[in-house]
Formats: sequence, structure tokens, C-alpha cells
Amino acid sequence: MEMESCVPPGFRFHPTEEELVGYYLKRKINSLKIDLDVIVDVDLYKMEPWDIQDLGYDEQTEWYFFSHKDRKYPTGTRTNRATAAGFWKATGRDKAVLSKNKIIGMRKTLVFYRGRAPNGRKTDWIMHEYRLQTSQNAPTQVHT
Amino acid sequence: MEMESCVPPGFRFHPTEEELVGYYLKRKINSLKIDLDVIVDVDLYKMEPWDIQDLGYDEQTEWYFFSHKDRKYPTGTRTNRATAAGFWKATGRDKAVLSKNKIIGMRKTLVFYRGRAPNGRKTDWIMHEYRLQTSQNAPTQVHT
Repeated sequence: MEMESCVPPGFRFHPTEEELVGYYLKRKINSLKIDLDVIVDVDLYKMEPWDIQDLGYDEQTEWYFFSHKDRKYPTGTRTNRATAAGFWKATGRDKAVLSKNKIIGMRKTLVFYRGRAPNGRKTDWIMHEYRLQTSQNAPTQVHT
Repeated sequence: MEMESCVPPGFRFHPTEEELVGYYLKRKINSLKIDLDVIVDVDLYKMEPWDIQDLGYDEQTEWYFFSHKDRKYPTGTRTNRATAAGFWKATGRDKAVLSKNKIIGMRKTLVFYRGRAPNGRKTDWIMHEYRLQTSQNAPTQVHT
């Protein structure tokens, strides 16, 4: 990625969950400056997971994005996680993200299914959706 | 490491062999400026592998150093790879390091043995020793 040109040779973006939530997501939500815009905004529900490579990220198997969560109904809190070809479905329990032994965020794991709920064929695509730990759900997430 | 403070959060030093040899080692040997002195000079034969952690590198299982190769005898070309507690012994064949399909360097793999050759107990410590591919052996190497 071009924007990484100020990073010395040999350095790669391999953030810890604490850095993802405590630095990148927190600053994004608070509209604070981020050192290097290495995490771009994408609407993950307007694209299929296998289209991510087409964004120009070669030789990677993990990607990081900011994406707004889409509500299923304007007045509700249920989330619409469908794409044109399938849907992202939560799996397992949410996991706490810690910093100095304090919870700063939560991580939800989702699996991509082709087709339409309640049917659909499970794929190998996994998403980790991070949110800040606040009294209410934060309006934005960072995805890997 | 303090010197990494100008690298944005979440970036870690995970160089490719091409970057190690074609950028870091080549510039080191030619006394050219290196963006960030992330690879420090160490005499690897004056220390034991298990002392590397004491240099202040936490949470790592791989380290990168520049180290001069010590000759066994002042007039010879044989290398002295002994430490106080043991010795590094080459294993397998040297492997080429490529850049754009051209050989730019070679990688030697060494294993640490406790004790004195030809005896000694093999350990799990592995070193990769890189050299530039020149007509003669380069006087310095980078180790991982």
C-alpha cells in the first residue's frame, strides 16, 4: 500500500487487539488523528469476502477495515449482515479485549455463509468485529 | 524497543529475506544510512543464545543482529563459531536469497550445541546467517 511508504523496510502491520481497539478504533470513533491511515473505510456488506483481494492487497490473508454497522430496520437495533451473495453469522461468544487488565472492547467472530438465512453454505471466511466497550454499542467497528 | 517510536502503532519488524539482505545487510556493509536502526550490532560469539532475551527484547522468539564473523586463525578462512558454553554448527545446505529472480545473498542455517566439538548436546536454538552474494565472503552478516 502506498500510504505505508513512510514505514521503514521490513515493517508490517501486525497489530495486537489492544492496539486495534485502544488506538485505531478509539481514535477513529473520536475523530482523532491516526499516525498512518493503514485501516481504510469499507462497507463490508456491499462486497463479498472474496472481492477483498481486488482492493489491491496482495500476499495477505488478513485485512483490516473500518465499517459501519447497518441496522436491519431504521428503528431497531438488529444488525443486517447480509451481502448480495450471502451473510455473516456470529459464532461463539464475544471475547473481551483487555488493556492493563481492564476491558476496553469486545470481539465478535463471524463466519460467512453463501446463500440466504436460515439456509446457506458455510465458508472458510472469518471476520473479527471489534467494538469499544461503552455503555451502548459504538456506531463503528473495525474488522479483520 | 525505543528506537521504534517513529513507527506507527501496530507495525512490527517482520522482514522478508529479500529486505534483510537487499536493504539492511547491503546498506550496512556499504555504510549507507538505514531508515531505522532496528538491527543492532552484537558479537554473537561472546554471548549464549539464551542470554539474548536479557538484551530487553520481550515477547519475541526471533531476533535480528549484525555480527562480525570471527576467524579461527588470523590467516585462515575457517570460522570460529564457539561461545563460552557451546558452539554454532552449520546444518543443511546454504539457501539462495532472491530478488527479482536474481541471487542477492545466501542463507546458512546453524544449530547451537552445548559443550565442545566434536561432542556437544544439540539444542533448539537456530540461527540463520545471511551474507551478500559477492565473489568473496562479505565481512559482516546479519543473523536471525
